[in-house]
Amino acid sequence: MLLPTDAVRAAYAALARYDDPALFLALKPEVQAIEEAATLEAQGSQGRPLFGMVVAVKDNIDVAGLPTTAACPAFSHIPDRSAEAVSKLEAAGAIVMGKTNLDQFATGLVGVRSPYGVPRNALRADLIPGGSSSGSAVAVAAGIVDAALGTDTAGSGRVPAGLNGIVGLKPSLGLISSIGMVPACRTLDTISVFARDVETARKVTETLAGFDPRDGFSRHLPAPMPCGFPPTLRVGVPMDAQRQFFGDVLSEVAYSRDLETLADRGATLVPIDFEPFHAVARLLYDGPWVAERYATVKPLIENDPDALHPVTRSIIGGARHHDAVSAFEAFYKLADYRAALAPILSAVDVLAVPTVTRFYTLAELEDEPVRYNSNLGAYTNFVNLLDMAAISVPVGKRSDGLPSSLTLIGPAGSDGYLAGLASGLEKGRSAGPVRGCPGHIELAVVG
Amino acid sequence: MLLPTDAVRAAYAALARYDDPALFLALKPEVQAIEEAATLEAQGSQGRPLFGMVVAVKDNIDVAGLPTTAACPAFSHIPDRSAEAVSKLEAAGAIVMGKTNLDQFATGLVGVRSPYGVPRNALRADLIPGGSSSGSAVAVAAGIVDAALGTDTAGSGRVPAGLNGIVGLKPSLGLISSIGMVPACRTLDTISVFARDVETARKVTETLAGFDPRDGFSRHLPAPMPCGFPPTLRVGVPMDAQRQFFGDVLSEVAYSRDLETLADRGATLVPIDFEPFHAVARLLYDGPWVAERYATVKPLIENDPDALHPVTRSIIGGARHHDAVSAFEAFYKLADYRAALAPILSAVDVLAVPTVTRFYTLAELEDEPVRYNSNLGAYTNFVNLLDMAAISVPVGKRSDGLPSSLTLIGPAGSDGYLAGLASGLEKGRSAGPVRGCPGHIELAVVG
Repeated sequence: MLLPTDAVRAAYAALARYDDPALFLALKPEVQAIEEAATLEAQGSQGRPLFGMVVAVKDNIDVAGLPTTAACPAFSHIPDRSAEAVSKLEAAGAIVMGKTNLDQFATGLVGVRSPYGVPRNALRADLIPGGSSSGSAVAVAAGIVDAALGTDTAGSGRVPAGLNGIVGLKPSLGLISSIGMVPACRTLDTISVFARDVETARKVTETLAGFDPRDGFSRHLPAPMPCGFPPTLRVGVPMDAQRQFFGDVLSEVAYSRDLETLADRGATLVPIDFEPFHAVARLLYDGPWVAERYATVKPLIENDPDALHPVTRSIIGGARHHDAVSAFEAFYKLADYRAALAPILSAVDVLAVPTVTRFYTLAELEDEPVRYNSNLGAYTNFVNLLDMAAISVPVGKRSDGLPSSLTLIGPAGSDGYLAGLASGLEKGRSAGPVRGCPGHIELAVVG
Repeated sequence: MLLPTDAVRAAYAALARYDDPALFLALKPEVQAIEEAATLEAQGSQGRPLFGMVVAVKDNIDVAGLPTTAACPAFSHIPDRSAEAVSKLEAAGAIVMGKTNLDQFATGLVGVRSPYGVPRNALRADLIPGGSSSGSAVAVAAGIVDAALGTDTAGSGRVPAGLNGIVGLKPSLGLISSIGMVPACRTLDTISVFARDVETARKVTETLAGFDPRDGFSRHLPAPMPCGFPPTLRVGVPMDAQRQFFGDVLSEVAYSRDLETLADRGATLVPIDFEPFHAVARLLYDGPWVAERYATVKPLIENDPDALHPVTRSIIGGARHHDAVSAFEAFYKLADYRAALAPILSAVDVLAVPTVTRFYTLAELEDEPVRYNSNLGAYTNFVNLLDMAAISVPVGKRSDGLPSSLTLIGPAGSDGYLAGLASGLEKGRSAGPVRGCPGHIELAVVG
């Protein structure tokens, strides 16, 4: 393992090599980062779980002394205090390198909705990086940082992981404090974690987990414990006829093969009716939750609308059409979908879906900035509305060399269980449990 | 115990003696009720827990073949199927006598907002009966039926119990199926139970409890088990300076004495800051939840507004001022209050508050139909918003002979525990456990 000072130097060198001015929106001066690392080094590890790890933080999460912009210059301010999650990272021995680019106000799954440019996809320069946690995913995938914080409301912690071939852990809602995070939809948001391997993502998540009495949406949940690949596993997958890839045949083929990998590990694939999940996903786009985004940017969108990215402004402005009555009607619909899904979910242990339906190019996105964004969320949008946890993990490669990733989805509190399964699948590794598994977890949607 | 046919005859005779045309909005013909009773009688009890019990049902809960009006003639329709709760009552051997009057669409705590007149308070004719479950509470208090179903969103299952000197059990949200109930606020509603003693209320509630997959707000909760009065009990009570009785000195004196009764039983009274609870209560009145009521009556209020009671129309019409943004902002406020209340609640086992702040007369209500209604909800409105269970139980008498009732409040799932405590307090009975108590229940607001 590198010494902290060497790790920091390597990170800044890798950043220089990657040479992407759209990646970081604020960078800690290298001398300051090295100074922090030297202090850590002098103290020694003292058992700190993230000792010497270099991390990046999505720029909708506060880091004391660095500006928080949420990719909106007019929103920029310099917080006095770091977000609770950032404080925990640092207390665990990690060194924050800087703040990463994102789809403005975390609204988008594409990574191109930022006035600061588009972070370059780490795998192929003509592809979108995915979002909204674009910079965080790319910084990890490019080997600059060991791990990065993102956020996830509709898929922002999973889609860019899939598009850059890394691991994205989308924790249970309320597992990680959101104090010091710019909300997107407070009732659906969570901070998320990117890493190049499952064990790192799990370890960082475990470090961040914990009830925070100051956060009204914090919950008492088990911290993600390590867990293995159980001998029997029932995996819910969309029925053949319902699978959506929007014309990306290579992704479709890769998904089928990734499911075979699951079956080879002993899992039983259970085709289920995915239409109710897609209906929940549509509810997120058509429903009142966009009003939560409006609540965050209210002063800005009402007094200085031109300060917003035009696509973002148009999406968030749509909140004006929702009144409280239609909001509650949507909640009732969601409750009915949850009830309808309960028996479907009780028949399986986890779901396994493709993370990314299609690898879109930057050029394609220019033609259809909203519709293709929706397509990217087909297998991510329903997860937070159903109060579930998820992890995206690269499982294989498509014939064109791009990675194919599965997202494993389980009920709130199953984070560690999911990480254990993902660990048994990642990147062509041979199967085998990480450590002992506490056993079967009943999959049930919490009401 | 009376034979079922004798019980039915006694109920109809008591109704005739009470002679109140505003009590029942629909009555099952006596011959039909006797026929049902005779069938039961011929079958014998067969262990049915409510065998031969005569019950009334609030007229916002469906009984097959009787009109459901919700106290609005234009809303009247005759359902083919009974509500799930009513079916369970009947399957347990109870006989439904009819449908009782209520504040229109269960909007009100006063019992006077009905075009069908005002049920007469069973204790003093010049007093309001309380609402919204006015008829159900009076039918029980007047000795006509053994138990009655009400509903409770803001206090409708507790306030009329207090004003008529009976027991009102307000179950945990999601404990009893609401299939077949006209919603008030679907996210906050529950069917509730009135009886003249705690054990009957508990037994009926236990019969009705159970997860219903068709109800999106149904939950897996323990059915109310019988439970006693534990040797040590920490009871949260409002600090002296914060107690609200709106000038009703006798209620104030009686509340202090009822708390002494609690202390005599060995409970430790813990004065707590009640302002956050009152703030939550205000949120219910000022917040977006009124939009849930609007959703129920939308076709009516938009196409035939005169069909609504003028006070009801004015209250529900207020929903038009709430947009989805302000709705979510209220949810955030509520989440913050919950977080602020968590440490306060973790220091006690239950709360004990007055059920009724003041006994209002019919004449007083005419002057201030809305403000006095709010006053009545001071100790009830916050309970459902905080996802708590409650039971109102008469504990003593005021110097003018009217009953004084305490409401005991605990977390979701504590229904049986609360019933056990109430049983140890009711109507001057000497203390003593009902049966064994499963032990200490941690009081924590569920997020």
